[in-house]
Amino acid sequence: MKGFGVIEKGKVGWMEKPDYVCGPDDAIVRPIALAPCSSDVHSAYELEGPWLKNRILGHECVGEIIEVGSNVKDFKVGDKVVIPCTTPTWKHPDIQDGTHQDAGGLFAGINFSNYEDGTFAEKVKVRSADMNLALLPENVAPEAAVMVTDMMTTGFYGPELAEVKFGDTVVVFGIGPVGLMAVAGCKLRGAGRLIAVGTRPNCVKIAKEYGATDIVSYKEGDVVEQIMDLTNGKGVDAAIVAGGDLQTLYNALAVAKVGGGQVAMLNVLTEIDTIAIPNAAVAGFLAHKTIKGGLCPGGRKRMERLLSLVSHGRVDPSKLITHRFKGLEAIEDAFKLMVDKPKDLIKPVVIID
Amino acid sequence: MKGFGVIEKGKVGWMEKPDYVCGPDDAIVRPIALAPCSSDVHSAYELEGPWLKNRILGHECVGEIIEVGSNVKDFKVGDKVVIPCTTPTWKHPDIQDGTHQDAGGLFAGINFSNYEDGTFAEKVKVRSADMNLALLPENVAPEAAVMVTDMMTTGFYGPELAEVKFGDTVVVFGIGPVGLMAVAGCKLRGAGRLIAVGTRPNCVKIAKEYGATDIVSYKEGDVVEQIMDLTNGKGVDAAIVAGGDLQTLYNALAVAKVGGGQVAMLNVLTEIDTIAIPNAAVAGFLAHKTIKGGLCPGGRKRMERLLSLVSHGRVDPSKLITHRFKGLEAIEDAFKLMVDKPKDLIKPVVIID
Amino acid sequence: MKGFGVIEKGKVGWMEKPDYVCGPDDAIVRPIALAPCSSDVHSAYELEGPWLKNRILGHECVGEIIEVGSNVKDFKVGDKVVIPCTTPTWKHPDIQDGTHQDAGGLFAGINFSNYEDGTFAEKVKVRSADMNLALLPENVAPEAAVMVTDMMTTGFYGPELAEVKFGDTVVVFGIGPVGLMAVAGCKLRGAGRLIAVGTRPNCVKIAKEYGATDIVSYKEGDVVEQIMDLTNGKGVDAAIVAGGDLQTLYNALAVAKVGGGQVAMLNVLTEIDTIAIPNAAVAGFLAHKTIKGGLCPGGRKRMERLLSLVSHGRVDPSKLITHRFKGLEAIEDAFKLMVDKPKDLIKPVVIID
Amino acid sequence: MKGFGVIEKGKVGWMEKPDYVCGPDDAIVRPIALAPCSSDVHSAYELEGPWLKNRILGHECVGEIIEVGSNVKDFKVGDKVVIPCTTPTWKHPDIQDGTHQDAGGLFAGINFSNYEDGTFAEKVKVRSADMNLALLPENVAPEAAVMVTDMMTTGFYGPELAEVKFGDTVVVFGIGPVGLMAVAGCKLRGAGRLIAVGTRPNCVKIAKEYGATDIVSYKEGDVVEQIMDLTNGKGVDAAIVAGGDLQTLYNALAVAKVGGGQVAMLNVLTEIDTIAIPNAAVAGFLAHKTIKGGLCPGGRKRMERLLSLVSHGRVDPSKLITHRFKGLEAIEDAFKLMVDKPKDLIKPVVIID
Repeated sequence: MKGFGVIEKGKVGWMEKPDYVCGPDDAIVRPIALAPCSSDVHSAYELEGPWLKNRILGHECVGEIIEVGSNVKDFKVGDKVVIPCTTPTWKHPDIQDGTHQDAGGLFAGINFSNYEDGTFAEKVKVRSADMNLALLPENVAPEAAVMVTDMMTTGFYGPELAEVKFGDTVVVFGIGPVGLMAVAGCKLRGAGRLIAVGTRPNCVKIAKEYGATDIVSYKEGDVVEQIMDLTNGKGVDAAIVAGGDLQTLYNALAVAKVGGGQVAMLNVLTEIDTIAIPNAAVAGFLAHKTIKGGLCPGGRKRMERLLSLVSHGRVDPSKLITHRFKGLEAIEDAFKLMVDKPKDLIKPVVIID
Repeated sequence: MKGFGVIEKGKVGWMEKPDYVCGPDDAIVRPIALAPCSSDVHSAYELEGPWLKNRILGHECVGEIIEVGSNVKDFKVGDKVVIPCTTPTWKHPDIQDGTHQDAGGLFAGINFSNYEDGTFAEKVKVRSADMNLALLPENVAPEAAVMVTDMMTTGFYGPELAEVKFGDTVVVFGIGPVGLMAVAGCKLRGAGRLIAVGTRPNCVKIAKEYGATDIVSYKEGDVVEQIMDLTNGKGVDAAIVAGGDLQTLYNALAVAKVGGGQVAMLNVLTEIDTIAIPNAAVAGFLAHKTIKGGLCPGGRKRMERLLSLVSHGRVDPSKLITHRFKGLEAIEDAFKLMVDKPKDLIKPVVIID
Repeated sequence: MKGFGVIEKGKVGWMEKPDYVCGPDDAIVRPIALAPCSSDVHSAYELEGPWLKNRILGHECVGEIIEVGSNVKDFKVGDKVVIPCTTPTWKHPDIQDGTHQDAGGLFAGINFSNYEDGTFAEKVKVRSADMNLALLPENVAPEAAVMVTDMMTTGFYGPELAEVKFGDTVVVFGIGPVGLMAVAGCKLRGAGRLIAVGTRPNCVKIAKEYGATDIVSYKEGDVVEQIMDLTNGKGVDAAIVAGGDLQTLYNALAVAKVGGGQVAMLNVLTEIDTIAIPNAAVAGFLAHKTIKGGLCPGGRKRMERLLSLVSHGRVDPSKLITHRFKGLEAIEDAFKLMVDKPKDLIKPVVIID
Repeated sequence: MKGFGVIEKGKVGWMEKPDYVCGPDDAIVRPIALAPCSSDVHSAYELEGPWLKNRILGHECVGEIIEVGSNVKDFKVGDKVVIPCTTPTWKHPDIQDGTHQDAGGLFAGINFSNYEDGTFAEKVKVRSADMNLALLPENVAPEAAVMVTDMMTTGFYGPELAEVKFGDTVVVFGIGPVGLMAVAGCKLRGAGRLIAVGTRPNCVKIAKEYGATDIVSYKEGDVVEQIMDLTNGKGVDAAIVAGGDLQTLYNALAVAKVGGGQVAMLNVLTEIDTIAIPNAAVAGFLAHKTIKGGLCPGGRKRMERLLSLVSHGRVDPSKLITHRFKGLEAIEDAFKLMVDKPKDLIKPVVIID
């Protein structure tokens, strides 16, 4: 089978791989909607390791089942399914006692384009199919559903980690696709005032549609000062970091309110040795500000819950899509778009008939 | 000062009371928006006790401050304020260790028309003003704000007690004003499928506007069966009881899913000796179904949080209002409307210039 | 292989069954410590159903592995292991979204002597061995560990369900083996005053050793009155029901404090049609009293955590053992002891070399 | 009245102050047991500000009431009472919506020797007496109770912030008085393996008595390596920082397990500009490690709960006391002992007849 991925650090292209053998718990899926992610670019050009040689990239996929293993009970050939970016085996006892994303080790729940081949291929193998797949609801388009697999589950994790409550004042730093989904998630968990930090006009427009009540831009002055002014010097109940750099994390800590402020970290910071937090923001961590963070939740029930929100009209994640492509081969163009990051890009999608 | 209330069980009318003496922590407020509640009717015609003789009724009020005590720091004469139905003293140590509604004893947080005079009067005394009052936001109408004081805080307590999460399937039993607010609150805490149980056409219409995805009516058959059918026999993640009778509570227990179903009780059941739960619904309470319940949360921060939701356009509680009256004297008509309960009534309001 | 169980309702005895075929995720275990439970008696004499014909009883077992399936990674032949009473397959998606005890249906996590054969046999088959077994720590005796598999995990679930906090005043109703473990668990979650309700002298003695600070007996008067007196009329933060009948549940509700009282139900009530709760105890469930309940948590991590408590000297569950037997055949005598319930019985154990 | 405190930075001594005027919510207390704290030393020699001129130091006190204000209901002259180190007014609305320690601003709940005079004096004024004082239980010695006011409430906050559960593996860094109380608190919240990091022999001895199962010392090698070895490379469920410096916080983050590890910060880090966390320990905060921290909880209910633990024999905080003094004047010697920090010092106490 054919797939698109990283041949070696800095070099991407198509590759031929043997067809998958479908294990008893597995499903083999033919993609019908794919989306590249900035972390695919990251894997291709910035990370390095033997697992990133001749590795098919991609982890966002909706598809049609073409084969199921003998143990699979709830899915059959022909079913249209949504594949979460995080597909643990659910066979490691850590799932009984912590976060499934890390069951068996740091990030072990994410195999796609990591320690196994990803979704940019003619076929995708999904492990523990009954535990990871979700049926595509009839009234949800594949292009909307593929936004659920990573962008929505990651973005919605922000208000969950930050324990957003009715009437909270919340800030979301970064309004790329994850940040926009975080904005939508905050509204759907009951945020009142909802400040989005960003600048690009099309992102600002969608942030407002998703529920942002205030927009703060670095172009208008110091971001921390602006947020403190908006909150009468009190700071926010919850700050979600969905983009930027280390300074963004510091800003989040600075604006989280004394006495219960929550900071949720969703952004991937790599190639950084030290996170040097200004002590003034946290008073030696005695100011009752909590920091949490983590990778996107996956698994079947997570997908079913988020798809229920889409299916029942609570949120439309397809608003993220700015560029549409057709046919598997176009994943190459979609990927290159993610590399080039034109100003008007939020998220591309590839639809395969 | 003049007030409208219960003279003795079964007999309501106007009464003259001495003006309040404003204590150091108190504020005296002139009502500008009032609403009667079905529990006012209840206090007048069904409950009995010495505290319900010559007692001014009412506990839903927005007003203008006409006097403040010497300790009050955050409010001044002329401020337009929202008064929660629940106004604890916040001086009982129970607030450090439980629910403020019951600090000092069952329902002790609710003094209005209970052990002190209520809001249907020329003047209202608010204890612990700094801890209980909230400023009326400029963009929120008094008639919307008066719906926050009891209906919204009670209704929104439903999804809080039931710990509604993203994508939950939820049922709200009863779509009177509290149930309608529970529907709106469930949507704003991330419910996916949201079933409302009720029949009256104008309530059904507003339930849908507030986010109900399915309507179930007893007229179409057994309510439990209909809900189990809608959920493929699994039941719901959360069931909120906002009306009905004992059978409604049993129905809620019956449809709450085995293994984590939550039942939140908001409805007032009085004159009932025994709650006879059918064991089949709960398997001796070993089926992991949780029952919680309680009176509406109050206090300043609660009001500020809910008003933030209204002010930022998350929900419009004034949709509840079906009947509008003018002038303090009209509270009598508004109250009688609550007694008569015409078919098209959801909630009346009285606006006083 | 030989096993002891229920032949048909009311008739117990030995039976011969074919040897297990070890599936790829399974382990076959030879028991070295067994204990009968009152629910075994219940299954033999009170319940009825086709699954209770020629069914080997028993669900409390420590043993030695004699065979493992091809997928089992963490255990090998010869390992001494603790088998939880609750051994889900961990392959049903419900585990991602609720309680594992009920994943796939009410009580579906408990197969032993329920819809599959139990532990009173020469061999025991454990499904999903990597997810359910725990190694027996070197310094924990098999007879202590077998008390962990059901009695300790069930009893400790009480303070977990009731969310016992530092300094809580707690009452445990019933001081049979589960109640005694609940007492020990409450102490280990930080209960201050800890009232145990029971009468039998040897149970009272162990309740005190496990941390009870007060003993209440029905012989001294009304139980509710005694508890309210002990708590100056305030009631308790948490009430755990580990024995008795419906009246006991009512008592628990009656003594749970207004404004946050927690009631945890651990006792099995069957053959009861209706749970008729006196409304005075709960004020229509508006008094902020929460009811929760459920079957014992199982799985590997649960066993490892509880065994860590035993291994590190936090609690000695072998204090429950009042009667010791030797050899598999003696399970018949041990079982009959459970049927007869002599006054001095708390828990028997059978040790098999 | 006479008091001992800081005259100006670096200079301590006795000072004469006017007698307190007892406000309506206040109580005036004559100390019967006092203890100096390392933060008193800190206030005298390291911090600087106008509020630390002629400021009476001290915040740990048990005493006898000599005067109560007109609003005080639950206490009377002659009552022996325990005064928490944190005594908020409980009149700021932040208590409804966050941590009482910071109600009204960072650390605003702690007035003693901060923005008001402290406890090292002939008389102590306690604000909001009904909300802050707790009666000294008859069977608790004043010297034990004075250890509750700060050391125990702070130490016990560690396992609360870190959400210690049954069977958790926990490490406490630092076994001075707060760390020792954290050890005791971890045991009382159900920790299994409990690693204490420290070196001084008398502290090690008491750490073991309080429940430590393993002792790790920097003298035996790298602390992180030792803890990772003890936990088979998995790390701990919870790490509590109760001493040391920035490196200690890094060590805590390093040993907290991937996928749910909790870090609770209790130690006061001042004169530090930057907290430079090594990214390897937290993977950009995506490794699901949570950081929380905060000052000691106070108020009446907190004291009553902790005193209940002492009174019911769950823990004996007087084990911390290594040096005993008599008479108010001896506070000067006790304070100097805290400055000199002899090897055998854990905590001094001054008893005043």
